[in-house]
Amino acid sequence: MEIEETTGRIAEQLEHLKRYTATPGKGCTRLPFTKEARQAVEFLRKQMEEVGLCVHEDEAGNIIGIMEGEDPGQPCVMMGSHFDSVINGGDYDGIAGIICALEVARRLREKGLRRKRNFAVVGFCDEEGMRFGNGYFGSGAIMGNRDAEYCRKFKDTDGVSIYEAMQGYGLDPEKIGNAKWPDGSIGCFLETHIEQGPVLDSEGTEIGLVDCIVGIQRYMVTVHGRSDHAGTTPMDMRLDAVDAAAKVIGKIAGWAREKADGTVATVGYINVLPGGVNIVAESCQFTVDIRSRNNDNINDIANRIRKALEWETKIMGGSFEMESKLSILPVNLDQDILGIMEESCRKHGYSSRYLPSGAGHDSLEIGQVIPTAMLFVPSKDGRSHCPEEFTKYSQLAKAAVVAGDLVEKLLTDEADRRG
Amino acid sequence: MEIEETTGRIAEQLEHLKRYTATPGKGCTRLPFTKEARQAVEFLRKQMEEVGLCVHEDEAGNIIGIMEGEDPGQPCVMMGSHFDSVINGGDYDGIAGIICALEVARRLREKGLRRKRNFAVVGFCDEEGMRFGNGYFGSGAIMGNRDAEYCRKFKDTDGVSIYEAMQGYGLDPEKIGNAKWPDGSIGCFLETHIEQGPVLDSEGTEIGLVDCIVGIQRYMVTVHGRSDHAGTTPMDMRLDAVDAAAKVIGKIAGWAREKADGTVATVGYINVLPGGVNIVAESCQFTVDIRSRNNDNINDIANRIRKALEWETKIMGGSFEMESKLSILPVNLDQDILGIMEESCRKHGYSSRYLPSGAGHDSLEIGQVIPTAMLFVPSKDGRSHCPEEFTKYSQLAKAAVVAGDLVEKLLTDEADRRG
Repeated sequence: MEIEETTGRIAEQLEHLKRYTATPGKGCTRLPFTKEARQAVEFLRKQMEEVGLCVHEDEAGNIIGIMEGEDPGQPCVMMGSHFDSVINGGDYDGIAGIICALEVARRLREKGLRRKRNFAVVGFCDEEGMRFGNGYFGSGAIMGNRDAEYCRKFKDTDGVSIYEAMQGYGLDPEKIGNAKWPDGSIGCFLETHIEQGPVLDSEGTEIGLVDCIVGIQRYMVTVHGRSDHAGTTPMDMRLDAVDAAAKVIGKIAGWAREKADGTVATVGYINVLPGGVNIVAESCQFTVDIRSRNNDNINDIANRIRKALEWETKIMGGSFEMESKLSILPVNLDQDILGIMEESCRKHGYSSRYLPSGAGHDSLEIGQVIPTAMLFVPSKDGRSHCPEEFTKYSQLAKAAVVAGDLVEKLLTDEADRRG
Repeated sequence: MEIEETTGRIAEQLEHLKRYTATPGKGCTRLPFTKEARQAVEFLRKQMEEVGLCVHEDEAGNIIGIMEGEDPGQPCVMMGSHFDSVINGGDYDGIAGIICALEVARRLREKGLRRKRNFAVVGFCDEEGMRFGNGYFGSGAIMGNRDAEYCRKFKDTDGVSIYEAMQGYGLDPEKIGNAKWPDGSIGCFLETHIEQGPVLDSEGTEIGLVDCIVGIQRYMVTVHGRSDHAGTTPMDMRLDAVDAAAKVIGKIAGWAREKADGTVATVGYINVLPGGVNIVAESCQFTVDIRSRNNDNINDIANRIRKALEWETKIMGGSFEMESKLSILPVNLDQDILGIMEESCRKHGYSSRYLPSGAGHDSLEIGQVIPTAMLFVPSKDGRSHCPEEFTKYSQLAKAAVVAGDLVEKLLTDEADRRG
């Protein structure tokens, strides 16, 4: 009965949020600092207020709702995820985790328990990095890792910086430092998220207990050649940026396969300038995304790319830049918190298993410092970042029940979980 | 004295035409069926009328000025080039050849000679193929090689077809067949063009007599994979379109180098969808442009690309398309016409040499059927298709003098040059 109500509320809210996309009928496109992001935030604000949370939008564009406990000075329990999406992405990635946190708050309110400490529901801004090529913007900001200089540095493909985009969205990037939470004010962080991989769905497992998040390094590589006429410039007189870049790009996936330990590497974006069929390329720009449980593997692949670029651009007579856009170490998640949730799954009769996360999450940014855990729910066919992304609302409801048990225990527990 | 006047007039007109660019300060961007193309055509129309030509725009967007001879039924002498440019191209490629033809008409008019046959000055539309990926549109149309179906088939990167672009420009693509000149109505074609290569400039030679134009094949290749999350999809479960495409692209330049006979091959455009840093590519599209004096070399490289794509997409588990966008055989130009111009260079004391053209030209399309010749003028440092493209006006004037001698001889000659 209780689980059906929870399923219904989650369904209603996620169905409503589906509207806030720049590509109706073609999946969710909710880029940071856009109209669609603003609409989602205002909807979340209303839902939070309805549950009786004290709501504010911080200087990084995160939307935060606080349910006060008896001693607000105690480290709080924080739960949430992000509200942005990739281009033509799905309706669950990120946003479902915020709605689960809201549901946990709603159930807490209904139970009317004495709470020793604050519970914070957070919707993070720009986790995906789709627009500016970096990501973990909002969660980085609450950890104090974002400043105005960072906002000026990164730009979207139209040349708009985060700084400018924030101003257009009604935020003051000079004040982003205010988004940082004081050291010790967050006791632990919990995130519910779709798996985005095939493990739970193929096994029929209901709840994934995430014990590790892979590390990530992202680069923007630019190979510089010289633009020339594709017909009149002999092969031995051209500086063909595409030729040099393709020779490197074509090896990257193989280097990841060699590791044979789940390490992955991806080139998802290539841009050639000037881009004419009959013009030798002046430049070829591409992204690289490398992930592994083992940080040495990531470093090794990045070094091989750098060396291959040095070699190919030397042969060509051109040059290259390999700009780091993101570098996050792998993190192990909190075993104590995971143990409590494993016990809760058993109690409710939900099947569960431990598994690593191959995707980065806000938990990766926060888990570097704060005890953190994640719950995964099954992704149909392992698909995500596409319109076909699908998770049953009843599965999200079960995750909300398990998360609710944990949060209840933490809020009513006397012990300070900071240590 | 005479050459100084010619230089001055050519300078004045080309300086004026520089304004008709979509990228002021960043070279000439005059794509077909745009405002800039319309402005250039209207300027050319005025210049042609001033010289007393009978002017009309044909159904393909070519601008044509006729100076009538005593027997308009005789095959005419046609001279011209194209008025479109690449993106961020130069101010001489194409347009300078129209202005030279106009200058030849002006000098003919001033001399007041009896002309046996018509002289046609033509500004061709869309030679470069920058917008729709094919090219030789206007010259193909006067040869009867373009129809409404062709116009529907090719689209620009915004999805606008030639058909739609023509309608927006005030042309009726259904009537493009009317642009064809009757068989036998064009006796010969002459084109003055910048070399776009380094030979004349590095030698200090004033006039290039082009004896051959290389053949060209152009393809649009699309490799189809599957979009997946770049973090959660194991390397052995992904269909990475970029990985497969890069392995092929990285070999193409090498195959052209192997031929060691001036054969060239270029990938100048790559587009990855959906194009996110953290998404495995669903598709990777790229252009290939292959040119050679020897058509067997072109076919061989195209076949190697096809076989490599078959292999790589089979390994990946995806598929590909390799769509032909252009296929033109190499042509040898008219030795008789070139001989007359060589003699003219000697007479005026201009240094000259025979050389092939590595670039395609309207002459390539027309020369498949009609006796054709080209004059090259030096390109500074061999640069073209870039804002740095430069040729001295005095060098264009010398080409106009040599072309003028030829045209005068052909127009006053009794013999029918059709045979």
